[in-house]
Amino acid sequence: MDDGLKMDAGGLEAFLRAEFPQVAEDFGIERLDAAGISVRLKVRPAHLRPGGTVSGPAMFALADLSVYFAILSRLGPVALAVTTNCSMDFMRKPEAGADLIGEARLLKLGRSLAVGDVLIHSEGKDAPVARASMTYSLPPARAGA
Amino acid sequence: MDDGLKMDAGGLEAFLRAEFPQVAEDFGIERLDAAGISVRLKVRPAHLRPGGTVSGPAMFALADLSVYFAILSRLGPVALAVTTNCSMDFMRKPEAGADLIGEARLLKLGRSLAVGDVLIHSEGKDAPVARASMTYSLPPARAGA
Amino acid sequence: MDDGLKMDAGGLEAFLRAEFPQVAEDFGIERLDAAGISVRLKVRPAHLRPGGTVSGPAMFALADLSVYFAILSRLGPVALAVTTNCSMDFMRKPEAGADLIGEARLLKLGRSLAVGDVLIHSEGKDAPVARASMTYSLPPARAGA
Amino acid sequence: MDDGLKMDAGGLEAFLRAEFPQVAEDFGIERLDAAGISVRLKVRPAHLRPGGTVSGPAMFALADLSVYFAILSRLGPVALAVTTNCSMDFMRKPEAGADLIGEARLLKLGRSLAVGDVLIHSEGKDAPVARASMTYSLPPARAGA
Repeated sequence: MDDGLKMDAGGLEAFLRAEFPQVAEDFGIERLDAAGISVRLKVRPAHLRPGGTVSGPAMFALADLSVYFAILSRLGPVALAVTTNCSMDFMRKPEAGADLIGEARLLKLGRSLAVGDVLIHSEGKDAPVARASMTYSLPPARAGA
Repeated sequence: MDDGLKMDAGGLEAFLRAEFPQVAEDFGIERLDAAGISVRLKVRPAHLRPGGTVSGPAMFALADLSVYFAILSRLGPVALAVTTNCSMDFMRKPEAGADLIGEARLLKLGRSLAVGDVLIHSEGKDAPVARASMTYSLPPARAGA
Repeated sequence: MDDGLKMDAGGLEAFLRAEFPQVAEDFGIERLDAAGISVRLKVRPAHLRPGGTVSGPAMFALADLSVYFAILSRLGPVALAVTTNCSMDFMRKPEAGADLIGEARLLKLGRSLAVGDVLIHSEGKDAPVARASMTYSLPPARAGA
Repeated sequence: MDDGLKMDAGGLEAFLRAEFPQVAEDFGIERLDAAGISVRLKVRPAHLRPGGTVSGPAMFALADLSVYFAILSRLGPVALAVTTNCSMDFMRKPEAGADLIGEARLLKLGRSLAVGDVLIHSEGKDAPVARASMTYSLPPARAGA
């Protein structure tokens, strides 16, 4: 494609269903373009903590998947990126009963490392509930990349 | 208690069952003393990714709970600590079929912030699979703490 | 001011000269508005490592000051914010002989904690050389804030 | 050497003087063995902020150098490790007039990435003033490493 993307939203979701079937139904892609990607966490009871807030691990999963998808969209489905570092700030309590949206951008796509960051907000609210930056180790056998 | 601890392992596990029933069965306390705490993640299929490796969110949950327990053991069950920051390095692939052990220590217990770090290893292996540092915001109504 | 700012660029630079005279000449404010702040590190030999690259500590200083200024611009000069956490990714080698520009935005300005992030790039180049997220503890005596 | 170390304290200090002459006088090695390394920051006025506290960039430099030395001690002076990530918590105010000691340990020394962490305390005080974890990208041409 002209925008440097090797997978589109449908391709990423199909990849997710094939490779990570246990979590595929939790996530959906809202937007994917050259500037970045928006990923939705379809919040359900298993993601909640007492009081209705979304759990930290669920927000971690959204952050990780959002940047991972941003990388895959540019490398194609052959890539086997491994998360090596995560830094995350939890800033506000998510809205009860609202999905979470992760807005990720890729900051570096090098030969051996990729770095991206993501802002997470409750659907319908602008203020971010969390931010994260993620680093991935990329496999050496990435001919042509 | 003479060691500065206000809750013991049994008290922490009872607190977990009461406050976080949806995850209480996943965790157990191996050791708790003035130097720190060891927490076990009882790995089961829901924690795994393809290939048998423990998922990032499951390791995040173990890191978070380990330091949270270290704080609670010193503040008592009235505390309402909120995770504000997490930094995590994923360094090795966990052993397939082995529980994970988090070894946490408290580095700071201030009036408004607590900081701890944790090393995670597969049971029976010394090499750490992950490390994390976690920060918690402590509630202001902590009279006498 | 209508934009929620309590200090402008000149006020911040005057504050820097008064409070941190030893580094005040190294930094300048390029832009300050409701969306964020741009801060320049005037690179000189003391900031360089062999090969002409800007040192990590100099980039840390730029990241820290950029977010600190973003906080001060909204709280005014009475604030005494203390850095409590920094997470930083170093992604590319800075250009030799070019100043560095930090573009910071404030993500949270709460009662006790403020969080911001910053992208650093070499002047004249778009690709970020580093990113950082910073957390600050705010003093309790912030009446009216 | 039997302890897996390829450089001793004297070798590291000589390497520092040769490669980073502008900061070499600021640092000294207190201890180096298989378990880790202790590095001293010889605090002088240029490291201080108003009130006598050691600046964040100076603590960053100590953290970075401590883990870097731990890596070099095992890889030898041919290594060209590049810092890719730093996460740092600032927990207490350093003692005025005291040197800072960084106690670093290497958590991973892989083919392409190395990870270590460090606790920093004021000389003569046990309570840590800061902690950091650092990641380094290692050059591919590390034959025999």
